[in-house]
Amino acid sequence: MQSDRPSSSINRRVLISGMALLPALSGMPLGSTAQAQTTQDNTLASWNEGPAKQAILDFVKATTERASPSFVPPEERIATFDQDGTLWVEQPIYSQVIYCLDRVPAVVEKTPKLKSVEPFKTVLSGNREAIAKLSLHDLEKILAATLTGMSVEEFNAEAKKWLTAAKDARWKRLHTDLIYQPMLEVMQYLRANGFKTYIVTGGGQDFVRVYSERVYGVPVEQVVGTAGGTRFGYHKDGQPFLTKEPKLLLNDDKAGKPEGIHLMIGRRPYAAFGNSDGDRQMLEYTGTGDGARLMMLVLHDDAKREYAYGPAQGLPNSRVGTFTQALHDEAKKKSWTVISMKNDWRRIFPFDQNA
Amino acid sequence: MQSDRPSSSINRRVLISGMALLPALSGMPLGSTAQAQTTQDNTLASWNEGPAKQAILDFVKATTERASPSFVPPEERIATFDQDGTLWVEQPIYSQVIYCLDRVPAVVEKTPKLKSVEPFKTVLSGNREAIAKLSLHDLEKILAATLTGMSVEEFNAEAKKWLTAAKDARWKRLHTDLIYQPMLEVMQYLRANGFKTYIVTGGGQDFVRVYSERVYGVPVEQVVGTAGGTRFGYHKDGQPFLTKEPKLLLNDDKAGKPEGIHLMIGRRPYAAFGNSDGDRQMLEYTGTGDGARLMMLVLHDDAKREYAYGPAQGLPNSRVGTFTQALHDEAKKKSWTVISMKNDWRRIFPFDQNA
Repeated sequence: MQSDRPSSSINRRVLISGMALLPALSGMPLGSTAQAQTTQDNTLASWNEGPAKQAILDFVKATTERASPSFVPPEERIATFDQDGTLWVEQPIYSQVIYCLDRVPAVVEKTPKLKSVEPFKTVLSGNREAIAKLSLHDLEKILAATLTGMSVEEFNAEAKKWLTAAKDARWKRLHTDLIYQPMLEVMQYLRANGFKTYIVTGGGQDFVRVYSERVYGVPVEQVVGTAGGTRFGYHKDGQPFLTKEPKLLLNDDKAGKPEGIHLMIGRRPYAAFGNSDGDRQMLEYTGTGDGARLMMLVLHDDAKREYAYGPAQGLPNSRVGTFTQALHDEAKKKSWTVISMKNDWRRIFPFDQNA
Repeated sequence: MQSDRPSSSINRRVLISGMALLPALSGMPLGSTAQAQTTQDNTLASWNEGPAKQAILDFVKATTERASPSFVPPEERIATFDQDGTLWVEQPIYSQVIYCLDRVPAVVEKTPKLKSVEPFKTVLSGNREAIAKLSLHDLEKILAATLTGMSVEEFNAEAKKWLTAAKDARWKRLHTDLIYQPMLEVMQYLRANGFKTYIVTGGGQDFVRVYSERVYGVPVEQVVGTAGGTRFGYHKDGQPFLTKEPKLLLNDDKAGKPEGIHLMIGRRPYAAFGNSDGDRQMLEYTGTGDGARLMMLVLHDDAKREYAYGPAQGLPNSRVGTFTQALHDEAKKKSWTVISMKNDWRRIFPFDQNA
C-alpha cells in the first residue's frame, strides 16, 4: 500500500498500525485445503513446468532427503507466507480494509455522535471518490474504531459473519474464495514434507486467524500478523475476558516481518514467499541462513485472469503490493525466484475449472 | 518475586520488564524428555496415587475419548505451563537473574566506565548482602545491560554457554538439571494424548527458548515469555541481523499471561499449570472455557527435598513465587487442584533415584 500520493491513498504502514487490533478464533475445522498431497503425480498440479515449479521441487528434495548435504531436521522446517497478494487477491484494496469500512455503520449506530464527525461522515455517505481520498490519519481512526474496543469474542463473531457474506466486486465471490490454488498446493506440498507453514502478514493477526485454518489449513497459532495488545479484565459476574486495545505491539511489515518471526516463531524460516517490498526483509532474513533456502516472489502479470501491476515489469503502479524495480534487481542478484502468474500458474483460483 | 519489602528485593514486575529482551535459538535436538509415554503402567510414574494424579488422568480421559461429551478436537488441545516454580526450581532466586548478575563482568569489560558506576560496582564487589539490597531500578539497569544491545545470535551463544556451566549453589548441578520429573511426565502424557504443550513464563522468552526443546521437549515456537523487541538491521557486508532492544513488548506475568496466550497462541488453553499469583489470571482464563478444563497449582511444601514457602500453608514468605492465601481460597472455590510436592510427588528431580 505504498503510493506516489501517500496522502490520498491507503498506506500499508498506517493500515498496519490500525490493524494492530484484532482477535482470534479457535476451533475452525480443517477444510480440504489442509489435506496433504500424497501422490507425486498430483504435486503442484496447478503449476506449469518451469523454473518456479522446479525451484520448489529442488528445495524440498534438498532439505528432506536424508542423504542430502542440506538435509533439515523436521522440527526446523519452517516456511512463511505473506498473505495479501501472495495467498489471496489484494486488489483493488485489502479485504480487511473493506471489512473496516463496512463496519462503520455499526460503530456509528453504537455511538451516534460519530454520524456527523469525519471521517465517519464521509464513509457513511457512500461516495467512493471521497472515501478513496481519505487521509492516512482518517483511516487510522476508522481502523481503531472498527478493530478495537470490543472483546476478542465479539470481534471474532463480527469478522466471521462478514467473511461468510461480503462479496468481491469483480468476481462476486467471498473474499476467502479469491485464494491462489497454486499457493495452496505449495503449502500442502511443504506440509506433506514435514514443514510447518506460517502466514506472516501485514494484515491483522486476529483477522486472519478467523479463517486461516479453514481456508489455508494454517492453524491460528501459526499466523503472525500485525498485532495489537489486549487487556485482561472481568465481567460483572467475575468472568474474565480480553478486550482489544488500540495499542500496536507488532507492525508486521517490512523490517517488522523478521522481527515478528523472531518474536512469534523464534526460528529462521527455510522458505519464504512474498510479492512486494513489504516482504523484502523477510526474504533477506530467510536467505541469510545456511544450507538450502527458498525465496519466492509472486509477480502479478496476468490482467486477464487476475491483475497486472508493479513497476518492475513496466506494469502500472498500484496502491497495494508494490513490487519495485529495486526488489526485482535484488531478487535477480540473490537468485530469488520470481513467479509469473501468467506463465507459471495453469490455474489461479480453486473455483477456476477452465485450466 | 513479590515481597513485603519491594524496594530491597527482586520484584517480578521489574524483573519482567528487564527480561523483555532476549533472543531465540533454533535447532536444539529433542532430548529424552520429548519421548511420549506409551504404556499405561508407566504413566505419571513419579506421582503418588491421590487427587492430583487422578485429576490429570480424568481430564485426559474426558477430553480425548471420542465418546466423551467433553471431547476436544486434537487441534484445540493446548496446555500451558508456567516455568519458575512449576517446571524448575525458582529458589532462592530466579536462574535468569543469576545469569544476568554473572554477565555483569563481561558487560563492564566491554564498557569499562561502568566499573565505577552503580549498580555495576556493587555487583562486581561480590558482596552478596549488598547485591541482595539492590533497588528495583538498579536491577532494571542490570537486566537491560545484560539482555539487550547484542545480536540474537550473540545472546543465544552466551546463554547457552552459561547454562552448560553454571551450577546451583545447593545441589551443585546445572540449573537445567533442577527440573521437576513429575511435571516432565505430565507434559509427556499430555503430548502423547495430542496436546500441544506451551511454556508461558514471566521469564525471558528468548532465554527459555535456548533450552526448552532439549530440557522440556517444548519447541521454541511454543515458548511464550516476557518479550522485548528486536531491531532488523544490516552488517557492513549487507548481511541482515536482529539486535535485542530494551523495549518491552509483552510483560508475560499476571494479566500479561492470558494476554500473551492470545497474542502468541490465539487459543484458550484446556489445561494450565502454575504455582503463584503470577499464574492466577492464566488459570482463570483457562477455567472460563467450556467443557473439561484442568487448572493446577504446585505448592512448595517440601523443605527437605526442595523448598517450603508460601503463606497459604503458614509457610515462610518468599522473594519469589508467591502462593497467597487469596490464591489458595480461589483455588478451593473454583476446584482448581493444588499439588503438594511433599505428598503427590514420589520423586522430585530426574537425578533423584532414591524415590
